[in-house]
Amino acid sequence: MKIRKRIITKAFPLISAAACILFLLGNCNQAERGEDAAEDQLMSRARNIFGPMPENAFPDGKEASEELIELGKMLYYEPRLSKSGLISCHTCHNFGLAGVDNLPVSVGHLWQKGPRNAPTVLNAALHRLQFLDGREPDVEAQALMPILDPVEMASSEEHVLSVLRSIPEYVDRFSTAFPGEDDPVTYVNVGVAIGAFERILLTYSAFDSFIKGDVNALTGEERDGLETFMSVGCTACHVRETLGGQTFAKFMTPRELSGEVEPDLGRFDATGREEDKHFFKVPSLLNVVETYPYFHDGSEWSLEAAITEVAESQLGIELSTKELDDLVSFMHALSGEVPEYARLIPALPASTENTPKPVFD
Amino acid sequence: MKIRKRIITKAFPLISAAACILFLLGNCNQAERGEDAAEDQLMSRARNIFGPMPENAFPDGKEASEELIELGKMLYYEPRLSKSGLISCHTCHNFGLAGVDNLPVSVGHLWQKGPRNAPTVLNAALHRLQFLDGREPDVEAQALMPILDPVEMASSEEHVLSVLRSIPEYVDRFSTAFPGEDDPVTYVNVGVAIGAFERILLTYSAFDSFIKGDVNALTGEERDGLETFMSVGCTACHVRETLGGQTFAKFMTPRELSGEVEPDLGRFDATGREEDKHFFKVPSLLNVVETYPYFHDGSEWSLEAAITEVAESQLGIELSTKELDDLVSFMHALSGEVPEYARLIPALPASTENTPKPVFD
Repeated sequence: MKIRKRIITKAFPLISAAACILFLLGNCNQAERGEDAAEDQLMSRARNIFGPMPENAFPDGKEASEELIELGKMLYYEPRLSKSGLISCHTCHNFGLAGVDNLPVSVGHLWQKGPRNAPTVLNAALHRLQFLDGREPDVEAQALMPILDPVEMASSEEHVLSVLRSIPEYVDRFSTAFPGEDDPVTYVNVGVAIGAFERILLTYSAFDSFIKGDVNALTGEERDGLETFMSVGCTACHVRETLGGQTFAKFMTPRELSGEVEPDLGRFDATGREEDKHFFKVPSLLNVVETYPYFHDGSEWSLEAAITEVAESQLGIELSTKELDDLVSFMHALSGEVPEYARLIPALPASTENTPKPVFD
Repeated sequence: MKIRKRIITKAFPLISAAACILFLLGNCNQAERGEDAAEDQLMSRARNIFGPMPENAFPDGKEASEELIELGKMLYYEPRLSKSGLISCHTCHNFGLAGVDNLPVSVGHLWQKGPRNAPTVLNAALHRLQFLDGREPDVEAQALMPILDPVEMASSEEHVLSVLRSIPEYVDRFSTAFPGEDDPVTYVNVGVAIGAFERILLTYSAFDSFIKGDVNALTGEERDGLETFMSVGCTACHVRETLGGQTFAKFMTPRELSGEVEPDLGRFDATGREEDKHFFKVPSLLNVVETYPYFHDGSEWSLEAAITEVAESQLGIELSTKELDDLVSFMHALSGEVPEYARLIPALPASTENTPKPVFD
């Protein structure tokens, strides 16, 4: 991918120059030439806004060790981190369901419901901040929170460390994954490991192929959708290779606006600043077709309705039927496969007599 | 595996004959010959009781189509079959945990607890009957029950069929998996598909390698454990390649015997026959080390304690320390890996506007 990209980038000025010469010579069919030029222009404009997906989401592109990533994967699938022994990261961020649970809000310990819709774990490591209110800086810090949240996994640092230290295979794996550390089985390292795993959870869409130079990666409708997406103003917020996840925007759902439910204070919860009330991290649109229901309260199941609502409330515009259809087509071009490595469930080591028992009352 | 097995089986009389000739000629070291003969004898005796694991658990060994098995796998991982949209077969029969949840009893819809410990799905298709009370004849019939059970997935046939019929990819996959059927999306076919998937969920242990002819597959302790297992009477119940799952036995747990809890009526629930009270299907011992806690109420976390208890209550014997240690070693030789194909989570197709919404109140 890297090599191919480099070739394309280097070849691009040559292709442009050749196109200019052909244009000057009038040496091709007008309509065809116009179309090619428009395609190039669309790609060129899109590249300025979105950029290509990286190979992984490690800060400098340098992947963590296989051992650290594998440990993180095991912890991601590990229900014994939860108080009940039943709930793992994967319970709400299911790789069969594009890294979400497709529920309005997640169900946790004792069947309690979470306050907000669970965003997908896919590509999350590329977001500027974590959680819908941006209260954690990275996936390493984020991963530790649901484990402790009383309505999610309802665990404690002590419980997590007791579980891990009671199982020799985990102790060995922490030692290998964190070489040189005297006491590698720490709660912080649990986050480092899960975070490392999350940094490889990237998906590559048809749109990403387009951004990387494949003019045939998008259908006509998808191209029209991309054109609309850029022209009507969606790109004020949905930027970079993630098409979101980088900035905050004020947003209230129809249920909140109508007074049906108390409006969520959003980023204010994280910062305490008055001006952050009802601000939320702009959702990434990667895999948006599969990560319904939409909005922070998971109140909208229809992608068409969600797009219509956001166009109205955020941009103050009413989309034509064609614009809406094209945008929906473009959204379909943002889906990609969960890496096979992530979807392969690891064999988790057996508990020992010292492993804390599940508590699910 | 099949070919190798055939060669070994055919070669066995020749090897035995050769051993006899060598014995008659006195043409080898006494001690060595004695050891080899004992090994062969142990293997030979074990083969009469246990037999080799088959390649799959289809009635005549003829595998179902790939399309049917893949559909079954998708349905196995499909939480939308449940009322809440959260619980799938995999929730309680987790491939990261040897096909169980490692909880005393499972947690289902609205965090309700099931009445009995969930047995592993691994190798279950080789059992003579399904469920601990044997109330269903095969995995195809069994698979349909937890979906409808109000304390498990709490769904209904109507809900399941509405979900599947609302998703074009499922309709297509049922058509391909059940060729020639006019209306293939039926509740019975859901069971047929999940059952087909379960019939490939076999695990191959070191003990199975031994049974298939590898004298080096077991350690000294494991061989001693096998010897004890056969000599003290465990094989009265734990027979065939599954070491159980074929017959019923009366069993009450210590908690039941002490009056701490009401004794489970067991197979009586399925047959209504007085003589079946407190009878349970003898658990298979494949992967027993990983499928704690033990007994139908999941009350015993220690394998040593479980073996000691069963030896006392079922066989009326008190095991020596060495016997117990050897039996535990032998139990470790009964574990095998979950097939990689099963552990690879499939991408589940997205819901449509017609898909019933989850109900988790």
